[in-house]
Amino acid sequence: MSKKWVYLFNEVDQAEAYAGSWDGVRGLLGGKGANLGDMTRAGVPVPPGLTITTEACNAFQVTREFPEGAWDQVLVALKTVEEQAGKKFGDPANPLLVSCRSGAKFSMPGMMDTVLNIGLNDEVAKGLVVKSGDERFVNDSYRRLVHMLGTVVMGIDDEHFEEPLKSYKEQKGYKSDTEMTAADWAAITEAYKKVVLEQMGFEFPQDPYKQLELAAKAVFDSWNSKRAIDYRRRENIPDDLGTAVNIQTMVFGNMGGDSGTGVAFTRDPQTGENVMFGDYLMNAQGEDVVAGIRNTSKISGLKDELPGVYQQFHEITERLEKHYKDMQDVEFTIEHGKLWMLQTRNGKRSAKAAIKVAHDMVQEGLIDKVTALGRVSPDQIDQMLHPQFSHKDIEKARAEGRFYSKGVNASPGAAVGRIYFDADTVERMHNSEKQDVIMVRPFTKPDDVHGMLAAKGILTSEGGATSHAAVVARQFGVPCVVGAADIAIDMSRRQMTCHGVTVKEGEWISLDGTTGEVFVGQLGLTTPDLSEQKELMTLLGWADEVSHLQVWANADYPADAKRARAYGAKGIGLCRTEHMFFDASRLPDVQGMIMNAASTQRMLDSLEQLEKAYQIGRLEGRTLNETDKAALKVEIEKEKAAIKNSPEAKTYFGALEKILPLQRGDFYGLFEAMSGLPVIVRLIDPPLHEFLPSMEDLLTDVATLKAKGITDGLAEKEHMLAVVQELHESNPMMGLRGIRLGIVYPDIMKMQVRAIFEAACDAKLNGFDPHPEVMIPLTGHVNELKEVQPTLVRIARDVMAEKGVQVNYKFGTMIEIPRAAMTAAEIAEYAEFFSFGTNDLTQMTFGYSRDDAERTFLGEYVSKGILPKNPFQQLDRDGVGRLMRRAVEDGRAVRPTLEVGICGEHGGDPSSIEFCHIIGNNYVSCSPFRVPLARLAAAQAALKHG
Amino acid sequence: MSKKWVYLFNEVDQAEAYAGSWDGVRGLLGGKGANLGDMTRAGVPVPPGLTITTEACNAFQVTREFPEGAWDQVLVALKTVEEQAGKKFGDPANPLLVSCRSGAKFSMPGMMDTVLNIGLNDEVAKGLVVKSGDERFVNDSYRRLVHMLGTVVMGIDDEHFEEPLKSYKEQKGYKSDTEMTAADWAAITEAYKKVVLEQMGFEFPQDPYKQLELAAKAVFDSWNSKRAIDYRRRENIPDDLGTAVNIQTMVFGNMGGDSGTGVAFTRDPQTGENVMFGDYLMNAQGEDVVAGIRNTSKISGLKDELPGVYQQFHEITERLEKHYKDMQDVEFTIEHGKLWMLQTRNGKRSAKAAIKVAHDMVQEGLIDKVTALGRVSPDQIDQMLHPQFSHKDIEKARAEGRFYSKGVNASPGAAVGRIYFDADTVERMHNSEKQDVIMVRPFTKPDDVHGMLAAKGILTSEGGATSHAAVVARQFGVPCVVGAADIAIDMSRRQMTCHGVTVKEGEWISLDGTTGEVFVGQLGLTTPDLSEQKELMTLLGWADEVSHLQVWANADYPADAKRARAYGAKGIGLCRTEHMFFDASRLPDVQGMIMNAASTQRMLDSLEQLEKAYQIGRLEGRTLNETDKAALKVEIEKEKAAIKNSPEAKTYFGALEKILPLQRGDFYGLFEAMSGLPVIVRLIDPPLHEFLPSMEDLLTDVATLKAKGITDGLAEKEHMLAVVQELHESNPMMGLRGIRLGIVYPDIMKMQVRAIFEAACDAKLNGFDPHPEVMIPLTGHVNELKEVQPTLVRIARDVMAEKGVQVNYKFGTMIEIPRAAMTAAEIAEYAEFFSFGTNDLTQMTFGYSRDDAERTFLGEYVSKGILPKNPFQQLDRDGVGRLMRRAVEDGRAVRPTLEVGICGEHGGDPSSIEFCHIIGNNYVSCSPFRVPLARLAAAQAALKHG
Repeated sequence: MSKKWVYLFNEVDQAEAYAGSWDGVRGLLGGKGANLGDMTRAGVPVPPGLTITTEACNAFQVTREFPEGAWDQVLVALKTVEEQAGKKFGDPANPLLVSCRSGAKFSMPGMMDTVLNIGLNDEVAKGLVVKSGDERFVNDSYRRLVHMLGTVVMGIDDEHFEEPLKSYKEQKGYKSDTEMTAADWAAITEAYKKVVLEQMGFEFPQDPYKQLELAAKAVFDSWNSKRAIDYRRRENIPDDLGTAVNIQTMVFGNMGGDSGTGVAFTRDPQTGENVMFGDYLMNAQGEDVVAGIRNTSKISGLKDELPGVYQQFHEITERLEKHYKDMQDVEFTIEHGKLWMLQTRNGKRSAKAAIKVAHDMVQEGLIDKVTALGRVSPDQIDQMLHPQFSHKDIEKARAEGRFYSKGVNASPGAAVGRIYFDADTVERMHNSEKQDVIMVRPFTKPDDVHGMLAAKGILTSEGGATSHAAVVARQFGVPCVVGAADIAIDMSRRQMTCHGVTVKEGEWISLDGTTGEVFVGQLGLTTPDLSEQKELMTLLGWADEVSHLQVWANADYPADAKRARAYGAKGIGLCRTEHMFFDASRLPDVQGMIMNAASTQRMLDSLEQLEKAYQIGRLEGRTLNETDKAALKVEIEKEKAAIKNSPEAKTYFGALEKILPLQRGDFYGLFEAMSGLPVIVRLIDPPLHEFLPSMEDLLTDVATLKAKGITDGLAEKEHMLAVVQELHESNPMMGLRGIRLGIVYPDIMKMQVRAIFEAACDAKLNGFDPHPEVMIPLTGHVNELKEVQPTLVRIARDVMAEKGVQVNYKFGTMIEIPRAAMTAAEIAEYAEFFSFGTNDLTQMTFGYSRDDAERTFLGEYVSKGILPKNPFQQLDRDGVGRLMRRAVEDGRAVRPTLEVGICGEHGGDPSSIEFCHIIGNNYVSCSPFRVPLARLAAAQAALKHG
Repeated sequence: MSKKWVYLFNEVDQAEAYAGSWDGVRGLLGGKGANLGDMTRAGVPVPPGLTITTEACNAFQVTREFPEGAWDQVLVALKTVEEQAGKKFGDPANPLLVSCRSGAKFSMPGMMDTVLNIGLNDEVAKGLVVKSGDERFVNDSYRRLVHMLGTVVMGIDDEHFEEPLKSYKEQKGYKSDTEMTAADWAAITEAYKKVVLEQMGFEFPQDPYKQLELAAKAVFDSWNSKRAIDYRRRENIPDDLGTAVNIQTMVFGNMGGDSGTGVAFTRDPQTGENVMFGDYLMNAQGEDVVAGIRNTSKISGLKDELPGVYQQFHEITERLEKHYKDMQDVEFTIEHGKLWMLQTRNGKRSAKAAIKVAHDMVQEGLIDKVTALGRVSPDQIDQMLHPQFSHKDIEKARAEGRFYSKGVNASPGAAVGRIYFDADTVERMHNSEKQDVIMVRPFTKPDDVHGMLAAKGILTSEGGATSHAAVVARQFGVPCVVGAADIAIDMSRRQMTCHGVTVKEGEWISLDGTTGEVFVGQLGLTTPDLSEQKELMTLLGWADEVSHLQVWANADYPADAKRARAYGAKGIGLCRTEHMFFDASRLPDVQGMIMNAASTQRMLDSLEQLEKAYQIGRLEGRTLNETDKAALKVEIEKEKAAIKNSPEAKTYFGALEKILPLQRGDFYGLFEAMSGLPVIVRLIDPPLHEFLPSMEDLLTDVATLKAKGITDGLAEKEHMLAVVQELHESNPMMGLRGIRLGIVYPDIMKMQVRAIFEAACDAKLNGFDPHPEVMIPLTGHVNELKEVQPTLVRIARDVMAEKGVQVNYKFGTMIEIPRAAMTAAEIAEYAEFFSFGTNDLTQMTFGYSRDDAERTFLGEYVSKGILPKNPFQQLDRDGVGRLMRRAVEDGRAVRPTLEVGICGEHGGDPSSIEFCHIIGNNYVSCSPFRVPLARLAAAQAALKHG
């Protein structure tokens, strides 16, 4: 006997026995099929049907044919469906019509193809007219079938079908489809059949079984459509899951005034509030609701229109939510007053709703905290930080008459961008031109998803809160306004007009998906205050309870630190001290320091050698007698005086002295803000030439001055150019940076450590509890630490002795050079903590210049799938990660108390955070805005891996 | 009982029992002490004495005092020595005088301090005059003692002693020391005592035991003198070995005409010929010979002067050579006709001598081949490749009257440089000014070694073939001419004059250490033909017999390959194809290719997408019907035509077509030269902008033209600048290079692979046996190989099919990105061979830019000891090496037949070669000139590690 490829909805127990678990059933029958079976089993009124398994889909992908026995099983099962429905497929006297829908394990809304009304043909249509007595309904249904089979199954462009309908309606003077009569639809059906013949070269198939077979195969085919693959790639859904095909008895919402159809969420998918949310249309089929083409009624209206149905519907949806312990997204149809449930699934929701629903369901006792943590994705928390317009900016725009329109607030957040009217252009302007883009469409379809993903915001003139545009936008956190009906979009002239104001393609608008408002021009964006969102903060509190990893923040200024702490950061993992150098008021001193560093250092090195000789009483291998020593002493004093009087040294040390109190002030603010928590301060990292003007500019300036014979200012420029050229490096990323500066120009780091400890001591004396941790960047060899660290520790101790106060402190290093990771055991003998600088570590491990790679080849690498992800965004576990794992293991073997963290941009990326959990990091450090999502990601990692 | 710190020479058996082995004895007593004991045991006439152990030295370094009991043991042992010598220390009636010398485990010639005649004081001197009847000898000896204790032990500058002697001699009108009478020496002794009093503030010590104690401590002290430390660092001698002190009965070569002293080698240390080689002086002490201050007689002269002594000496040295199975360097003294051996040790020798002696001793049956291989260092083989002057150049210089002088040919090889007259200046000019420098001195002393190491060549006006300058120069392979007595060096005027021709400091000379000739100005240098050196080739043949590692060569041109093969290379490990691009005649085409690559590639990518869509019958997720496909076909043809007609594509492909036959020709020559052996051809590696003019130059040009209002040529320059700026990378080392180019601009590598296989097929058809191995550079992720390699393999197969001939080939990759090493298992599934590109791997693993680091900080790192060696010269085993080891293990686990090699500059470095042996590489590849030394290094690694 051949494998069972087909299950009736009422055979869900059999499927469960075969698959071994409910998750297995979902894998086998897809989410939709499994739930239809589950609802059937629970006695919910579901039109009878059958499911072709995902196993059949996978077999189909290889041979492009149904596997052996599958189609026969469909035919057998269809007989049972006929019995259950009391109708016969293809029988004009009592015809069974069926829908054919995809259903994968993970819901992919709108991404797969659907065909309705299968089983209609010329004969059956005639019979059905007799049986239903509703010729208009039958003809309408038939033209829908031809249209859907033509576009979805045969791949004929939609425009070929739109055109005859449009001209027919114009000819008749109709404004709406509702004006179309039975005869009109019959004419359209004939026209559509012609389209099929013209485009495909064969007649529209009259055989219902042929229709069904084509539709089912098209569903399987669509599993590998570009948009499905794009979606899976984005959502990390494996390619080999496959989709099931659900073949289900048609029920009709378009059979007159006592019929209708709708979709609903058991809670508000945008706010998460516990109120039924949805739309319905009387005398319509489901496509009309979802596509957002016709304006729908709110679900609450059904209460008045059909109270009994509404009551039954309400009971069913409540049962479903309790059964699935999650917010449900249901489709239903009312046929002549009888309610049929066509689908239930866990509802997609906005970030805000995800958080609120998870939070509320814990309060309601429906789920536990751990489940709640799994219901929100880190990305959704990130979306909560989407920018908004400030109240002031909005007021100003209004006053300037720049308010444009108001639509449905479909996906929260504000966006500013140039408008483009089709998905391809949107994508191109975003990718190639790096523009901020807003996609404007009458409505969106699955074909448009690539543009929606590239857009900063989406605006449609049609559709409601459950339209395609709204659902997709919410899911991906793209701000979206739909149904802004005042706006007239003129695709041919590439412009839109509202109340006489025309905005052309490429011009700027600003839209607010939270309020539904649209403005002309650019409004400023601000970021919301997360700490006021109590439900989120509660959820993140639960997250912290289960996490092993702490979340720290990268913050250079006290204001950043305060925000980080408010967002739940448990420390500062990276304060970049050199950012303080770039401050315009400080830059002249910093440049003065740099311009004189080399010459001063040469004098200092020579003095150091003399002093060392004096100290050990030997010079060049000869023992010094007392006369020699006295002479040497004089020499040393002379050298000291020379240094003191040298203009270079004066400028150098003068600059350092000026910078010291400024840095101390910066650090003091950090210790104040983070009192009681660790603050890792990284000593100077970038090459010194970063603080000087670019060589390119200076070259051009000097050449221009010379060619013009201008001498004024030439000497200065030439001097600056000479210094810049001396400091120039072919590959500055691998140059004189970090600890290398600490060895070549030790005074800079010494000044910084003095500033750190003066600030820490002052803070302590003022009642705060500072925990400074000094981080030395770019160590590659333990000997570098041996050379630099003891001097810095001595300065720390000196300062504390001067101030008469002790603070807790650590000295540690970044692990950002592959060699450091390979020699972590040696380095851990000196370093009390490791912080993975995964930006540089990725750079060196791959040999990719971060400044160049994304522009030159990395994009192509990712788009061709050579790299699964941009490794600067998501940690490369197989390469960089192996180095990290080794470093943690080797380092802890030597120093079990070693504190290990990460402070690259990966610290805010969920997958990277998960990896940090796996290898046993103590913390991740990320930008303050990403702290909340990192807290959730850390909790989810702990729940997943223990 | 306290530890035994002191051994008499005749207690060597006891020392051996304690130390457990002869090597242990050498460690305990030092090489000199051990051999003195060994000679004593063998009945060789050695003046009796004792050795204070290296253990005492190490204890001394901590406390700066002799360890407990040591001095008492010296006093007890001294009693025995007194008995053996039949004299008493400090007894005026029958005084024992002793020498005090250092002696470490590894000979460090001239680097340690020596004091002679210890035991003389005013009283003893008087008594000794009575006993010896030779007042002049006694007074001369006494003044030597005061001088040596004053300079070596007390650290008084030599000039303080030189001055009184000089003025005394001038006053007396003496030209030579031999004119000095007993009274003269007495006067000098008194003057020297005054020097001690003035400089030190105390009287010269009259107590013989005090003298001995001071001298012994000075020996221990000198272990940590700068020059000793420098030497140990250079020679990789551990700092904790310590030196022993040898206290030995003085015998006197300066007791009249039947006394003398000398040094000799059992074979010629410069040529290796089996003839006794050395110098002696009658009526002199050893210092006079070694310092090269007095002109010596050839050792053969002793045969006539003292035939009996010569006979005895000859027998003894022959016995010593057989006993130690190596060429011996001996010191002897004749006291009143009695021969005393003062020292024997394995003799330092020139590279040429090392090879010949090792070779000859195998032929003589004295040692086996394996021992012979250990007798020559890879560095010595390298020295054999030292440049020489061509015969023609020498003739020309002579004709131009530029011959300057001829001295003793002390260390072979030719050198050209600017002259400087003191070690410090030499070192500075070499290090800071990067000058080629020749050091010119009357004679050299141990203080001068740092200058000698920095010099390209050494010239002295005094001294012989065993003088300090000669010995050190030979050891380090620095070309050296000594004893060029015609040359008058005027230190005060910083110039030298010879036959009226004056050369000032900083001016150029050329010297030939092989012939002893010196020329004014610069002569051209050429490199010798190793393959003519039969003894070396024999030795290297023995090396190949024991090696596990093969030695291959890096060669870009057929001439290089021929030389490599002649030097014994077993393959080409790296042919850099892009070097061929830089050829001036090809550069315009290469630049044309580059300027049009990006625009052409964009068109090609678009065509590729269309063709792919046609092939799979789907476009953007939609199935194509026949109409669509026909339209697409037209579109494709149109696009093809557009590309064909585009000027960019024409230039691009035109350039590739022009380059193809040129590359094919290059490769053909390699396959011809290396017939039967593998040739690894690396596909294009550097970023494309390397082939264009520099951005700096273009910026200056454009700015200048603009400022001057010149339009002629401006547009071209601006266009070139625009392309250069587009290709510009902040960190080109980590940029669009290697396989990344193969992905972004695939046609270049395709052209190269076609050229390789066309050449290989042609070579095969012409009767050669080509073994091409295609090497893809810069792989970091296996997916890069997956993307690139199959296409290239297909081209290889296509070419072989076209040509109708099959060749053996491999495809492999460089491992030069840390990530490649970390993911070697994945990569080995595709790559048939790995070649470690240790230059880049070192660069990325350390994060050091090779173009910058040596200039900016690496020098300081090495001089401060932060890095033991420059990691671009000697492989960093702890970091880079760990990555390599892992890559080999992981790669072989997947592909046991994986061929593994190295092609960075480390391939010619002995330590790095040893490491490659340890981790199981198949071969190392280095420059052809380093192939011979690499063969020896590979053999030595195999002998050491098995």
